[in-house]
Order: sequence, then C-alpha cells, then structure tokens
Amino acid sequence: MRALVWDGTAARVIDRDPPSTTAGMAVVEVRCAGICNTDLEIIQGYMGFRGTLGHEFVGDVVEGPAAWLGRRVVGEINFACGRCESCARGLGRHCPTRTVMGIAGADGALAERVAVPVANLHAVADGIDDEEAVFAEPLAAAFAILEQVRVTPGASALVFGDGKLGLLIAQVLHQAGARVLAVGKHEEKLALLRAQGIATELVRPEPSGQADAGASPPLGAWAGEPAELVVEATGTAEGFVRAVRATRPRGTLVLKSTVAGLSSVHLAELVIHEITVVGSRCGLFGPALRALEARTVDVRSLVSARLPLERAAEALAAAAAPGALKVLVTR
Amino acid sequence: MRALVWDGTAARVIDRDPPSTTAGMAVVEVRCAGICNTDLEIIQGYMGFRGTLGHEFVGDVVEGPAAWLGRRVVGEINFACGRCESCARGLGRHCPTRTVMGIAGADGALAERVAVPVANLHAVADGIDDEEAVFAEPLAAAFAILEQVRVTPGASALVFGDGKLGLLIAQVLHQAGARVLAVGKHEEKLALLRAQGIATELVRPEPSGQADAGASPPLGAWAGEPAELVVEATGTAEGFVRAVRATRPRGTLVLKSTVAGLSSVHLAELVIHEITVVGSRCGLFGPALRALEARTVDVRSLVSARLPLERAAEALAAAAAPGALKVLVTR
Repeated sequence: MRALVWDGTAARVIDRDPPSTTAGMAVVEVRCAGICNTDLEIIQGYMGFRGTLGHEFVGDVVEGPAAWLGRRVVGEINFACGRCESCARGLGRHCPTRTVMGIAGADGALAERVAVPVANLHAVADGIDDEEAVFAEPLAAAFAILEQVRVTPGASALVFGDGKLGLLIAQVLHQAGARVLAVGKHEEKLALLRAQGIATELVRPEPSGQADAGASPPLGAWAGEPAELVVEATGTAEGFVRAVRATRPRGTLVLKSTVAGLSSVHLAELVIHEITVVGSRCGLFGPALRALEARTVDVRSLVSARLPLERAAEALAAAAAPGALKVLVTR
Repeated sequence: MRALVWDGTAARVIDRDPPSTTAGMAVVEVRCAGICNTDLEIIQGYMGFRGTLGHEFVGDVVEGPAAWLGRRVVGEINFACGRCESCARGLGRHCPTRTVMGIAGADGALAERVAVPVANLHAVADGIDDEEAVFAEPLAAAFAILEQVRVTPGASALVFGDGKLGLLIAQVLHQAGARVLAVGKHEEKLALLRAQGIATELVRPEPSGQADAGASPPLGAWAGEPAELVVEATGTAEGFVRAVRATRPRGTLVLKSTVAGLSSVHLAELVIHEITVVGSRCGLFGPALRALEARTVDVRSLVSARLPLERAAEALAAAAAPGALKVLVTR
C-alpha cells in the first residue's frame, strides 16, 4: 500500500506492507485523513518518531471483529495496555507503555490502511460526513479543556491563536457558555469565529527589522483585560509568556501547544498571581462526535485544501504555509 | 524607633520615625517577628523593595480603634484597597494596587512598631503563645494549598523541600488526610516530620566537582513513584524541573517558591502529561490560627534561633545559614 513515511530526513509517499490484524486490532481503510500541527512538529524532530505519519482519520473497518466489519469509524490515537493503573483510572491516554498513532511507536493514518485497537474505535453516525468526522480527534482535544477545567457560564475566556485548534477551542468554550474573546493574527480566520457570534481581536505583529529567516513571526502584543480562563494555542514559546500576563490572579491558563524545546518562564509570576497552568492534550471522542452530529461546532469552514494520498508530502507543505487551516488527504 | 532597614545595599538596624495612625490603620508594637526566605530574597534584589523588612509578626495594638487597643494580634500582609474587583471577590491578596508589608511599598515588622490596616488584624487566642503566633503568616501560606487544590483523603502527596515552609506544608497535607512523603536533604529537619508520623526521604545531593561559589547546592536526584499531588518548596529553579517529573499524568504540582529570574521549562512536558501547575502564595489566617490553637501543626520545633531586634541583621545571616529553620527577632 501507499503511505506517507517520515524517515527522519524526508517525508515521502512510498510503498509499505499493509498492516495485518493481530489480537484486539482492526484494520481500517482510510477515507480521509487530516494534517495536524503535530505532524509538522514531528518532521522538525519532535518525539523522534519514524514511520507512517497521521493521526486524524475516518475510514471503514476491513479486517477485525465481525461486529465492526464494514463500519465507518474514527479512532482514539493512544494505544494503551488496558491493564495498568492509568488505564484502570480511565486514562489510557496516559498509559506509560502506550504507543500513539503516527506520533510514537505506531504507524499512522496517512496511508491506505491503518491498524487501530478495536477498543479505540468509534462508529460514525450517518449524519456526519467524512470531512466532518476527520475532525473528531482535534475536536476531542478541544473538549479536553471541559474535562479538566470547570467553565462557569459567563466566565471570561481568552483564546490566543487562530490556528485550527484555536478555532475549535473558541467554539467549544463559546458553546459551553463562556464569554470568549479569540485573539489571532489572521483576519480571515477570525472572521470564521465572528460568523458564530464569537468576539475576536486582531493583533498585528510589529514588523521586526531583524527577523531571522525561519524564525516564527512575532506574536503581536495584546493589552486587553486579563481573563479568568486563558487558552494558549499559538504553538509558540513566546505565546506562553503573553498568556501568563493575560491571566487574572487566581485564574487558569490552559496550555494547548506542545512546544518543543525549552521555554524561559518567570515562575515567580505564576506564584505571585497564583495562576493555575493546565497542560492539556488529548480528549475523549464522545463529546466531539456528539457536537459534530448536532452541528454545534463548525468544522467545514476550517478545511483549506484537499489532496490525494499520492500528493501527501505536498499536503504537509500546504499545511505549513502561512494562513493554512486544515489540509485533508483523501484517497 | 529601631528598625531593620534594607536600603538596596545593606540591611541595618537604624533609627526611623515610628508609624503614626491614619484612617483605617492601627499601630502594633511588635513582640516577636520571624525571618522568611522572602526577606532573604529581597536582600538579593527581589521586588526592588526598600524599607523596613519583615512580614511575620505578633504584637499589641497601641494605636487605632478603641475595640482593638491593647489586643494581641497578628496581621495579614497584603494591604488592599477594599474597593476593586479583586477585593470584591475576597481576594484582597491580589488587589492590583495593594502594598505588601515589608515586601512592596509598606514598611515591615522587623521594627519596634508597624502600621497595619485594621481590616487585616486577627486577635490571637490566649492558648497560642507569641512564638507560635508568629507562624500564622507562613502557616496560612501552607493552608492556601487547601484553598486552591482539592486534597482527597489518601491522595499521594510529595513535598519537596525541608525548609520552614516545606515542613509546614507537609504537616498541613498530612492533617488533611493525604499520604505525604516529604523529600529533603537535611536529616535533622526531616526527623521533625517523622516525629509527627510523616514519611520522609533523604536525598543526598551528588557532590559536584565544579560547584560555583555562591551557587545553590545541588538538589539531589529523586526517583520514587510519581504522586498525584506534588509541592515544590525548595525555592530553586531546578526544583521545578524535578517536581514536574515527579507528578503523575493529570496530577497537580503546587509551586510554592518565588524563584527570582527566569527558569528554563519544557512546556511540552506539562502538555503531554496534562499536568496542572498551581502557583500558590499567601493564604487566609483563619485556618492557620485555628490549627495553632488546636496544636494540630507543630511550629515550636521549627524555631532555630532567637535574637533581639538590635541584632536583626545577624538574624538575617543566621536564617541564611545552611540548616537554619525559623529565626525569630524578639524585642
């Protein structure tokens, strides 16, 4: 089969043996897969992963238990042991011996077929089409915030970052009743949120005379009212510093970006203002699939390009381009 | 009056005008004051403070409203406006225009007399003697953890740091029903906790061949089981890194040290393991005074030296010496 493989140097579509079914596993024929910022970080060296990329997918079960054969599914990406203390607590996402699809020790979904533990499968309701279902994983990551933090109705919430995840988070918090202000640097992305009735603020990064080639563009200062809930989803280390200053005393800052490398942090600021920082990663698929079926979150406007699997390396490049949102890889 | 004044260069006992009463303020004649690590940080440059040091005290009201005259009191150290949104939320400790006794914009208690807002005073019950009452402020800081974090009975709790605050925190968490393991590098300090039935672990810092003069001594590695609640109270930037690794996925790390300067932090670790970091500073005096009266927390064994006000500069040096615990300044 064809698969987009990262070998540590280049990401290329090559031939690989298709996965075969082992105990507890199903094989899914992929209909559609999404490119995530994590994929872009992996090809910068994050996690030291080698193998088939991709962890956002929808497809049909072609091998596995009879009850699942032929069903259209999405799948949770952490492959857990099912027997350890974390798994017993319902936190297979933190199983210490887990592998993670397309991220750590398990091949991903940017391929014709992908192997997924049967325990991780979720059937997709007919009312959700493929290009919506493929958002189950990132939308679950947005819903993880509601698992971890109590969001009270009317709470002030600032979401920094108008990338794919930021746009999903802003919508989820808005639906949960928070007074959301989404802060980003792309007018056309923020407009998608305003169409949902969400307040936005455009921050223009100050032009820098000495920007390094390849350095991330400056964030843009933000000087509004501090909020009780702040979500940092810019994927930048500097974003954390800005977000700390935007969190009011005893407020909560949700950290949604896996920024590789070290960040310099004034820990004393967290102590003096008694700020709570909540690291947040993967969520449960249930709430995400229900929101997709009920269409309370708009994901369709977030699709910015579609490319066939054979052009998946191009899809990676397209997802990395400034202004890109979700790039989908179709079969 | 005599007072221990930090002028930005040296801390010396000198003559100053005694405070006079203004509206809403009382003047307290200090019976006993404690040296806190924050005082030691201030004379390293923290907060840019200039003035009379000290924020842990017990004394008698000598000027102020008739209802308070002659009463033995302790006092909360954040002097709040009483009118802003933070104050309305009961968080005068975070009032943006507050001054802080001996730390920011208000003279401290290492003096014959100190001015305190009447609203900040707490009468001390007869059953609490002066050398216990002077612990109300640091003990309140330990109780702040219970305000901010839900500690369930039997929860595993690791307390890093066997300084004054660490010893108080270990006791407060133990009383709250957590299974506490206190990790420190001073056998004689950990023994004080074992006398209370608290488990301890001594970590021996590895000898370093190239230790810089003046650098903090190495922390000592720790390789035990991660805990659901971890408290970092070593007052060092490296302590944070060790504490993150000791926090189990979805666990909570309480940051109790105001470490000056920048710390290098792998933010991705917080995200991947979905760790919550809770900055924690000052607490309410009520629970602390109740614990002192009920003698559920042992503070007396924490007193390591007593010096008269005239020798308060020596008291600062004594508090900075390795192995020192609470140094008290008496009149």
